[in-house]
Formats: sequence, C-alpha cells, structure tokens
Amino acid sequence: AEETVPTDAPHRRFNPLKGEWVLVSPHRNKRPWQGQQEEVVIVEKPRHDPNCYLCAGNERNSGAVNPDYKGPFVFPNDFPALLEDTPAGGTSGDPLFRADTVRGTARVMCFSERHDLTLPELEVTDIRKVVDTWADQIVDLGAQYDWVAVFENKGAVMGCSQPHPHGQIWASDFLPNEVAVEDSNQARFLAENGEVLLVRYAADEARKGERVVVENEDWIAVVPWWATWPFETLLMPKRHILRLPDLTDTERNSLADALKGLCTRYDNLFETEFPYTMGWHGAPTRQGKFDHWQLHAHFYPPLLRSATVRKFMVGYEMLSEAQRDLTAESAAERLRSLSDIHYKSVK
Amino acid sequence: AEETVPTDAPHRRFNPLKGEWVLVSPHRNKRPWQGQQEEVVIVEKPRHDPNCYLCAGNERNSGAVNPDYKGPFVFPNDFPALLEDTPAGGTSGDPLFRADTVRGTARVMCFSERHDLTLPELEVTDIRKVVDTWADQIVDLGAQYDWVAVFENKGAVMGCSQPHPHGQIWASDFLPNEVAVEDSNQARFLAENGEVLLVRYAADEARKGERVVVENEDWIAVVPWWATWPFETLLMPKRHILRLPDLTDTERNSLADALKGLCTRYDNLFETEFPYTMGWHGAPTRQGKFDHWQLHAHFYPPLLRSATVRKFMVGYEMLSEAQRDLTAESAAERLRSLSDIHYKSVK
Ligand SMILES: O=P(O)(O)O[C@H]1O[C@H](CO)[C@@H](O)[C@H](O)[C@H]1O
Ligand SMILES: O=P(O)(O)O[C@H]1O[C@H](CO)[C@@H](O)[C@H](O)[C@H]1O
Repeated sequence: AEETVPTDAPHRRFNPLKGEWVLVSPHRNKRPWQGQQEEVVIVEKPRHDPNCYLCAGNERNSGAVNPDYKGPFVFPNDFPALLEDTPAGGTSGDPLFRADTVRGTARVMCFSERHDLTLPELEVTDIRKVVDTWADQIVDLGAQYDWVAVFENKGAVMGCSQPHPHGQIWASDFLPNEVAVEDSNQARFLAENGEVLLVRYAADEARKGERVVVENEDWIAVVPWWATWPFETLLMPKRHILRLPDLTDTERNSLADALKGLCTRYDNLFETEFPYTMGWHGAPTRQGKFDHWQLHAHFYPPLLRSATVRKFMVGYEMLSEAQRDLTAESAAERLRSLSDIHYKSVK
Repeated sequence: AEETVPTDAPHRRFNPLKGEWVLVSPHRNKRPWQGQQEEVVIVEKPRHDPNCYLCAGNERNSGAVNPDYKGPFVFPNDFPALLEDTPAGGTSGDPLFRADTVRGTARVMCFSERHDLTLPELEVTDIRKVVDTWADQIVDLGAQYDWVAVFENKGAVMGCSQPHPHGQIWASDFLPNEVAVEDSNQARFLAENGEVLLVRYAADEARKGERVVVENEDWIAVVPWWATWPFETLLMPKRHILRLPDLTDTERNSLADALKGLCTRYDNLFETEFPYTMGWHGAPTRQGKFDHWQLHAHFYPPLLRSATVRKFMVGYEMLSEAQRDLTAESAAERLRSLSDIHYKSVK
C-alpha cells in the first residue's frame, strides 16, 4: 500500500517526527515571481578582516579580545537569550497565563580562523575539527543542562549578523518545543513499531534511493518525504547513535565528508553561498532513557528558484499548513545530480 | 498563583491554543544589529496603475480581464496551490511515507479598486465591505469545503507579490495543521474547564488591561501573553461567535472600526506600511459540533526595531523554540500609546 498517491497532483504528506502535515503543490512552481528579490552581495572576502568581531586578535563588542586562534574557536555569546543566573522564580498556574523561569547559556563558535571560507570550502580535515568541537560542547554543556542546541544560521537572509563563518550553541535547563515534540513522536514510534523511527527511515531511503542526495558508508542525507522547505535535507547516521559525542573516529571523518558533499551541492545549485538554518537534534542530555532517539541534522534552506528568489513561509503556511511547490523527489534529483566540486574552486 | 514569574528575566510562556512554549528574553533587545536591513521602497502609488494585474479593467496573467469593479473584488487565483479536480487518489499507509490526496481551491480578493490604499487607509465603511466579503466567501466555499482560510500577506518582506492591497482565500477538503491543533486544544480546554478558551481569555485580558492594544464594545485586540512575533496581536470578539458569517450588522461595523484602529497603530509604530501575515481562524465549515471554538484573527508582523530591522525566526527558533526579545506587555504598551490617526494623513 506504499505511495499509491499520485504525486504529480496536489497532496499532503505526513512528518512523523513533528506529527505535522505539509501540502505539496507540484504544479505551482510554474507561477511567475514578481515579489521580493533577495540581495546577493558578492564581495571578495579577505582571509582576515581587521573590522570583524570574530576574527583572531580582534576586539569584540563586549571589549573582550579574541586570541590568535586556529581552527574552531568557542566563546560566550555577548548577547545571550538565556542566562545562567536567572533567579529561581517558579511557575504560574493559571492555564491561560502559564510561565516558567528558565536558565541556560549561549556560545558562539567560529568554524576556523579563516574569514573567507564557509563550511564546504574548508578541507575535510578542518570540518572534522568542527565535528569534534560540536561533540565536545555537548559533553561540556550537557553535564549541566538538559538540552544543548548546536546550530548555524548561514546568510543574511537567515538572520546571520556576522559574515565570519560561525555557528551557535545554546544550552537550557528545559527541553525546547521542537525537541520535546520529536522526543514524544520517536518514543511512540518505538512503542508501536518496535523500531527506532529514523533508523528504519534511513534504511528505507537508502533502499528506495529517489530522495537520496549524499550517501557514504556511515551517513545518508535525503530530502525527506515530508520536507517543507524546497531543498530541505535530513542528515542521519546509518547505525543507531544517540548523540554527537558517541560517534567513532571513523564516523567523525565520514561525517565531515558527508557535510562537505552536501553543502558543496547546496552551493553549486544556484552558484551562491547557499543560505540555511542547520542544526543537530540528538537525545537530551538530561537523565533518562532515550533509546527511541536517533541523532540527526536538519537543513532548512529558504531558496526556491535562484540565488535571489526564496520561498516565503507566510500566510497559508503560518496560519494553516506548510506548503511546497515541488516534490521532495525532484528536489533530491536536482541536488544529487550536481558536482561535488565547489563552484568557486573551478572558476 | 498568577504571574509569579519575574518577567524581566528570561522565562518561557505557554500558548494554550497551539500547545507550544515561547522563550522570552527581555534583556536581549539591547544587542546591536549588524545583520540584514529590509529595503523600504516608498513610491507614490497612483489610484489606478495601468501595469497592475489587480487593478480594474486590466488584463491578468491568465488572460482574463478584470471588470471595472468598485469595492472588494474576488477572482480565482491563477496559480492555485489546491485544485478542485485532483483525481481521487487515496492514502498511503506506511507510517513513514504517509500521504493523502487533497482537493481545494484558491481565490484572490482585492480590498478595493484603489491601488494606493492599504486596509487602515480605507474608510471604516469600506473596511466594512471587506468584512462582508470575507463572511460571504466563507458561506460560499464553506458549503463545499471543510475549511476556508482567509488571510492577507502584506508587504514584500512577507512574500506578497503584488502591490495592490489584497488578501487570499484558500479552501480545502481537510483541516490544515494549525487549525487541527487549535481545534483539539480548544476542545480539551472546554472539556477540562467548562469554558471556551478564547472567550475566557478575552474577558481576562479586558480586565487586566496591560496587553490590550485596541478595544471597543464588541472586540478586543491584545498582544497575547504567549506572542512569538515582536508585535503579534490576537483580535477576538467579546461574545462567543463561531465564524465570521455569524457576526451581526453592529459587530461587522465595530470590527471594521477595530481593524482600522489596530492597523493604523501598526503603521504608526515605525511610520511604514507595516508588513504582516494576518488571517481568520473560525470553526471548521464541515459537519460537526464546534462549540469549543471561538472566532479570532492572528496578526504576525515581522518587524522588531524599525521599518528596516525585522525579527528572524531562524536557528534556535526553527530547531528548538520560538524566541522573543521584548515582553508582550511592553509591545502592547508601545502600540496602545500610539495615535489612531494614520501617519500619512497628518503629513
Ligand atoms: O500567492 P502569492 O501571493 O503569490 O504567494 C505568497 O502567499 C502564499 C500563501 O501564503 C505562499 O505560499 C507564497 O510562498 C507567498 O509568496
Ligand atoms: O544571535 P544572532 O546571530 O545575532 O541572531 C540570529 O540567531 C538567533 C538564534 O537563532 C535568532 O534569535 C535571531 O533572531 C537571529 O538574528
């Protein structure tokens, strides 16, 4: 009874991780676009920018001075949304005015000292250092906090406020919404099916092949069946792994390789530094039984048709249901067929 | 036990309509912004633009010619995401590859023949015509479909692709995500508390006052306790009303008045045509018992600090939890204190 729905006509698909539907309108990509065009500023970036807050040796907003670092560099976010010393406040009980005091912390992580190189432009050995730093941060902050968010906002269109390639780490004493929802959906799936949701899904997708973008011995990246963003991908290990720190040495290298392959294809699609939000979802770092979890990374890129035309998740999407204008299969096919040599290096 | 949480420190608030939390970081509005600035194009717009697809008498993309209309004008969307005649396809049963065939339709609604006047710039009597048209569309399409989405994407930053002030109407043979979630949360609230969630909430907010932006005899607009967007508002009738067509003549007039008051304050906040997504949520139009529902409109505006600096719901927000940089109370206070005379009319 698999895939009996004609996927060239409007249909909905179900996201079992989030418990949500997405409306797919494959015929709609033909409509002309007269709306907003994103600005693409192509500037030759220097290896080191004396005016960059994040470059080695420079002074930050807070007055702190960056060390002369090489490779990944982690420092406290000067404007954290979460604070370590929030006074214990308590809870408000009224069901319409509920609130909880929260504690947490936020850090910034430069991927390397190079101001001019985004993730896919780094050597695999340097991406491996990023992987190790992500894992170390989760060990460090996970000892104290229930959840450690590791993510990157790439590109001005994704709210990134500093050009130096960097990601963020936010830790909290609570499980944020998205994580809590994935937690309960994965738990229910294991209880109902006796299998770990994303372990089974990765195996199914490897066998089917049509939504695969990048695959190596340990990792698989697909445009998921339930993708909402036009070129959204889901990156998963093939074996059952709860958290980034659990990766073996080999798996860290193959992850660096998969990241380079995926992000290079992204950049090659529209020959631009492809903007996105990406981040890791692994089992919570609080006490508990989390066998139902599988480590994975989500990539949510906004571009739809070119470097300047994005998908707007507005109106219908915000108030009714996410909607996409091409199928996951055709998005995957386009990404898969691209070269894994970065366009900048062949120019 | 109400509001015992110190709201000047980081905390989370709970949205009982969506069953989701939002992280509030009131101290964070101080951080400097060096990221993307939105473009604000101020053009004197003509009353009628010969190059506008939506103006009276002009030819549309499809080749159809608009009549010489006055007041609201509704026509079929030339690029609908939903189609009336999707072949009945069925369902796919695999829990990881679920899909459903869907049917529906989409229409566009010009608010008036005037190319140059947005909703708050129309006279109250003309806004009343918009209200009547919304209601008529719900009666018309609701006879055939389970759900009728009535919404407006305003501004290029919200994906609006045509400058002529207009909204959209999408009808479907299914309850979209957001509606299904609000349906079950409202049903549970009634079952548990013996009261309709938003009827009780409107009364509470009218009494408390601190989150009220606009209020008249029949309507109240607040920055809800659980707002995620910086200046998000929730517009509600004070009595229990299931759907827009159920409004009395008086309530339609007072709604037009409330809309003018709210949207004028929005425009006055940063002296700009304030962009947003807004839309109506009323009880589904399918058969069923929907006493737990209360009609309401959501306004989701992206601007944070000025006409050019928006809030980005990215990284942490997409992968962990919505986050805001000022409290609902301070946002409401700012909006409430603004004049209800439109800034353009005093220039
Ligand atoms: O139909 P429009 O105005 O061209 O398109 C706009 O509204 C739609 C409904 O919210 C969205 O799906 C599109 O992404 C947006 O650009
Ligand atoms: O911390 P930054 O990079 O200044 O800010 C960016 O990322 C944050 C975390 O996703 C968001 O809350 C902000 O809206 C966004 O602009």
